[in-house]
Amino acid sequence: MRKDGATSEIMSIITLTTDFGQRDSYVAQIKGVILAINPQAQLVDVTHAVSPQDVAQGARIIDEIAGVFPEGSIHVAVIDPGVGSDRALLAAEAAGQRFLAPDNGLLSSLFRRCAPRRVHRLVNERYWRPPVSVTFHGRDILAPVAAHWSRGADLADFGPACDVATLVMLLREEPRRVGSALIGRIETVDAFGNLITNVGEADLLAGDRDAFGISISGERIAGISRCYSDRPSGSLLALFGSSGRLEIAVNGGNAASQLDASVGIEFRIDLHDK
Amino acid sequence: MRKDGATSEIMSIITLTTDFGQRDSYVAQIKGVILAINPQAQLVDVTHAVSPQDVAQGARIIDEIAGVFPEGSIHVAVIDPGVGSDRALLAAEAAGQRFLAPDNGLLSSLFRRCAPRRVHRLVNERYWRPPVSVTFHGRDILAPVAAHWSRGADLADFGPACDVATLVMLLREEPRRVGSALIGRIETVDAFGNLITNVGEADLLAGDRDAFGISISGERIAGISRCYSDRPSGSLLALFGSSGRLEIAVNGGNAASQLDASVGIEFRIDLHDK
Amino acid sequence: MRKDGATSEIMSIITLTTDFGQRDSYVAQIKGVILAINPQAQLVDVTHAVSPQDVAQGARIIDEIAGVFPEGSIHVAVIDPGVGSDRALLAAEAAGQRFLAPDNGLLSSLFRRCAPRRVHRLVNERYWRPPVSVTFHGRDILAPVAAHWSRGADLADFGPACDVATLVMLLREEPRRVGSALIGRIETVDAFGNLITNVGEADLLAGDRDAFGISISGERIAGISRCYSDRPSGSLLALFGSSGRLEIAVNGGNAASQLDASVGIEFRIDLHDK
Repeated sequence: MRKDGATSEIMSIITLTTDFGQRDSYVAQIKGVILAINPQAQLVDVTHAVSPQDVAQGARIIDEIAGVFPEGSIHVAVIDPGVGSDRALLAAEAAGQRFLAPDNGLLSSLFRRCAPRRVHRLVNERYWRPPVSVTFHGRDILAPVAAHWSRGADLADFGPACDVATLVMLLREEPRRVGSALIGRIETVDAFGNLITNVGEADLLAGDRDAFGISISGERIAGISRCYSDRPSGSLLALFGSSGRLEIAVNGGNAASQLDASVGIEFRIDLHDK
Repeated sequence: MRKDGATSEIMSIITLTTDFGQRDSYVAQIKGVILAINPQAQLVDVTHAVSPQDVAQGARIIDEIAGVFPEGSIHVAVIDPGVGSDRALLAAEAAGQRFLAPDNGLLSSLFRRCAPRRVHRLVNERYWRPPVSVTFHGRDILAPVAAHWSRGADLADFGPACDVATLVMLLREEPRRVGSALIGRIETVDAFGNLITNVGEADLLAGDRDAFGISISGERIAGISRCYSDRPSGSLLALFGSSGRLEIAVNGGNAASQLDASVGIEFRIDLHDK
Repeated sequence: MRKDGATSEIMSIITLTTDFGQRDSYVAQIKGVILAINPQAQLVDVTHAVSPQDVAQGARIIDEIAGVFPEGSIHVAVIDPGVGSDRALLAAEAAGQRFLAPDNGLLSSLFRRCAPRRVHRLVNERYWRPPVSVTFHGRDILAPVAAHWSRGADLADFGPACDVATLVMLLREEPRRVGSALIGRIETVDAFGNLITNVGEADLLAGDRDAFGISISGERIAGISRCYSDRPSGSLLALFGSSGRLEIAVNGGNAASQLDASVGIEFRIDLHDK
């Protein structure tokens, strides 16, 4: 495929996002099945360290990567606590990318931002790997479908179109306005201990950026920094990070341990603060 | 190689299974050596998180992946506590796949299931990377041999054939029949806390599946489930997993922590139980 | 690129060394940006588990891998506590390889051993990914520059040449002679608990190897071993490891936990010891 020209080359990129960890052979089994059908697939591990069965965390990651991969890339997401039940498996096109995932909300952060162009339910067993196990649809259904899709199979062949309105969507915790304040929430803690929040740039008014204060875990942060090193080493700061979300960090340090903060805690933004 | 057609493309898949971890540069050094000889190799990390020097765990993983990769794939396994001693290094063909590993039992689970077609001992230094260190044969011997093999070198050129009967084989702990019961053993705990056992489907009689009970760590499981969600969330269950082995799990939870169970513990299956 | 012949194929190898961890999507975002420009890049993860902001550890890893990858490989190193400040970003050629990294000492171990042939500062925004964030230059500057470089862009186009004498160089802790003894230091602990030191083979005189003793954490090691299994299982030993540095290890065990030793501790080599 790769040699037919730029378009078909791009079609061979297949990324994997799972909660399988990297100690077991599960991820390699998925890759083996893909490579048996398309030996030239360009395989990319997004992460296999999603917390077991944490669909919301997986949904955030899928949303983060969709904007950077080349058009036509296929993203396979397997955080699938309902494997073997009657939950559907989906193939979808959105934002110029292709996605394969269970219908459990994994694609909902992305779909909220970019409405999908087409969504089909995987039904056609011709693209599956027999015998299909009841505990590992990542290997037996999603992997072979991804490989066939990368080689030019058509979405419509995988199964019937879905009504987008019926898909499972995770609730999104929006920041709340309380008087002149905004109550935000820590959504992720990254490997540096940076606290990534649910507050986006659009949640603040243009004039708010320089004139506000954040209260979190008994500490106070005044103003928005441009980058980590805007503040002295070891100091708490807030900035809009690479994903466009408000991030609470420590220059050269670890905000999560310094504040003893974790996913789910709330903090307060006082706007027009001096 | 990749462009010569489907067969030679498939020959360029090289997988790596080690106990090197992912913090150090050891794995990357192996990859660099391979790519210096075959820049188009399709490299796949199986896992680098085998417990240090745990040959039995590595042997199980090699056996699990052999069935899913395309014909001709090369699997390099480096769990090698005897590096630098007089233990042999092997190149083998079995189950339509190719393997490179020390002769310490790493290939024995696979060979017990699929007798190898050819096994040669690595002796021909022409395929090695000089100067060969005494502590890192993965980089200096197995990696360059894998790369040359992927480019078409012949197994027989690597060294003399071995008598298969003399290879190191790990003992296999089979489940034991005690009266009408079967005593099984936990062999692995996966990233979800699922307890993978040494009991295969063939160890049970056809009639046993619905009419038996498992006793483990003071708990009792009745019957075999089809999938995790067959039982209520948080409930213990048993099923035959994606590798065909009996697995003890918790729907939406972690059986290892719920039962405080780890590798090596035994459990009892009462057949014909009601 | 890959199909033009051996040389251009080799140019498509791009390795990544970061402190990003593998839980978040940061590494995948870098890969997505690279693949959007060069879908056939051969991407290699060196490690993403450098301790956060530990530039010295990153520098050692870059130095370890430079010798094994094929000529023309591109190594991207992102341990970048100064991201967004006025620290420079560099493109360099050294030892037949190509490097992209912040000017914070990440390349200094390598440059001390192999003087760079050319070093340029990244200034030309034409090769960057707009809008450039202030917190993720790995994705927005280094990744697209790496991809364009792999496709044939010229180093001189990325920005002006740097005076090598002005680059940030980390101090190197050399072993010290004290009378007839040498005081060394633990520089890294690998995944096996082997203690990798700052003592190289050249630090010892030819006659020293067989006639010396090491004192570390109250223990004594006599002589240099050739390989781990030269000593009985569970015994402490010292050998020159695969990187050419003196290594303190336990055959079949973990020297770091057995000695309760960690990075930074010193030990004493008594030369001409019996």
